[in-house]
Amino acid sequence: MIFKFFPKEFNFFDLFEKQVSHAVEAASFFREVASKGQVTEDMLSKMEEIEHRGDDAAHTIIEQLNKTFITPFDREDIYALTKELDDVIDMINTIVSRLRIYHITGVDKNLVEFAAVIELSVHAMARAVAGLRNIKNVQCVFDACVEVNRLENVGDTMRDRVLEDLLATEKDPIMVIKWKDIYQDAETVLDVCEDVAQVVDSIMVKQA
Amino acid sequence: MIFKFFPKEFNFFDLFEKQVSHAVEAASFFREVASKGQVTEDMLSKMEEIEHRGDDAAHTIIEQLNKTFITPFDREDIYALTKELDDVIDMINTIVSRLRIYHITGVDKNLVEFAAVIELSVHAMARAVAGLRNIKNVQCVFDACVEVNRLENVGDTMRDRVLEDLLATEKDPIMVIKWKDIYQDAETVLDVCEDVAQVVDSIMVKQA
Amino acid sequence: MIFKFFPKEFNFFDLFEKQVSHAVEAASFFREVASKGQVTEDMLSKMEEIEHRGDDAAHTIIEQLNKTFITPFDREDIYALTKELDDVIDMINTIVSRLRIYHITGVDKNLVEFAAVIELSVHAMARAVAGLRNIKNVQCVFDACVEVNRLENVGDTMRDRVLEDLLATEKDPIMVIKWKDIYQDAETVLDVCEDVAQVVDSIMVKQA
Repeated sequence: MIFKFFPKEFNFFDLFEKQVSHAVEAASFFREVASKGQVTEDMLSKMEEIEHRGDDAAHTIIEQLNKTFITPFDREDIYALTKELDDVIDMINTIVSRLRIYHITGVDKNLVEFAAVIELSVHAMARAVAGLRNIKNVQCVFDACVEVNRLENVGDTMRDRVLEDLLATEKDPIMVIKWKDIYQDAETVLDVCEDVAQVVDSIMVKQA
Repeated sequence: MIFKFFPKEFNFFDLFEKQVSHAVEAASFFREVASKGQVTEDMLSKMEEIEHRGDDAAHTIIEQLNKTFITPFDREDIYALTKELDDVIDMINTIVSRLRIYHITGVDKNLVEFAAVIELSVHAMARAVAGLRNIKNVQCVFDACVEVNRLENVGDTMRDRVLEDLLATEKDPIMVIKWKDIYQDAETVLDVCEDVAQVVDSIMVKQA
Repeated sequence: MIFKFFPKEFNFFDLFEKQVSHAVEAASFFREVASKGQVTEDMLSKMEEIEHRGDDAAHTIIEQLNKTFITPFDREDIYALTKELDDVIDMINTIVSRLRIYHITGVDKNLVEFAAVIELSVHAMARAVAGLRNIKNVQCVFDACVEVNRLENVGDTMRDRVLEDLLATEKDPIMVIKWKDIYQDAETVLDVCEDVAQVVDSIMVKQA
């Protein structure tokens, strides 16, 4: 009977690691896109494929959540975590898709820099999520969360500097509109990573 | 005594159907506005009236929720559902009001198309909400939710195409700013309908 | 033993009054900035200092929440209240920082007006939060919440009027982009104050 409540097949930790692995893949792919300075149809398809796999991972978690009576941590935290992880992947997809829609070509060094910070943040976020498996990881999880927060601050400063430059120097208002959206999106990815870290942090605190 | 917990006058299903009927009315009115290609003072007043009635319906639900001990489904789901339904009506109101503020006149075929998709989505959303009354409606509710999700994808594709066109062809940056806001708002309505469908879906899954 | 559950040092009412006092300080400082018509490095530092103190106050509340077994009202309401109060301070910080990033100088009478409305709203919000201490304050709390809602409507109308003017008269699209962001931010502060009032209102209703 106990198997009904602790079914072997519903391992939330495995499911979260799977979902976060799609975020890692998305961040790594975005860095590649930024460094190439153009988005081909193939790249767009690949990004969408990653995003669909991320969606599937999220759906699996929600489905299991709805079927499972006893969960390793609060239901609303599981829900929030999967929702925020999904948002990370969605936001990265949004940027790649926007680069295409706005016909942006050419390597932009600010975007390359953003992509590198995003990749660092997503990796730290993945360490935090992976650490949830065991309360012994508490220090490692907290360190990873602190790193995500630090990178969010780095991103804020970058966005402010980059927007200041853009608005002071770019004479074509249409280009201002385009790049403002893209830099803002990039910074939002880091915000959502911070939201993930906040959920992980609060789960860990409750267990401690 | 039981009447204190199941008071006849607090029928959440009736209240939700009332609230969703205002969303249907808003969507239908928006389609009319888009097809007329202008927003008169009278139209603005009518839209505000619909929005006020939507607000009243939401307030009634929250009030009953705060007074009622036993609810037909989780309190937080009731809260989320009424909040998201309110957001649908608010977003439609935002577009109509923005058309007026931005002095937009003339029929825009993209906006007409968006309005049609929004109306379809709000109708599907209304079917999903109405289906909550009875667990026997489970298939009908799920089908309606799938339709809302499908229309959100349709809206995403439309917005991407329409923004691509706008930014590639419109030479007046002020017009780009205006229409970008309006198309984005239109797509957001479909996002919020999807949020409603997600809440309805999760309520249904929990009951099943 | 009871002290473990009702520890003297964890007084949520004191903590919330402290946090809201930082919002009051932020609003008052923003009015000063708007009336001076420029943001110096010193002003930026002072704003960031207020924001950091606000962050600290929020962290203290979340920490206590995670450690405390019995809370004066629902945990999720405590969490929501501290989160929304933090958002008020963050949004005010965002505007001040944006004025600097966008190199805005000169007194803008619309912004001065917005700053005055924001200050009124934050004061009303502070009265609402302070009133939570005692159920006898119920009427005073409700009145303060009604005032916050009223001021949000005032802000909506102001933003609509100001955007209409801006888009109809400003010929430089870059200036349109800048001021649109700033006015939108200003209105968002009032939205978030309304969110705070909504949480306070619902806490009060549950206690009554």
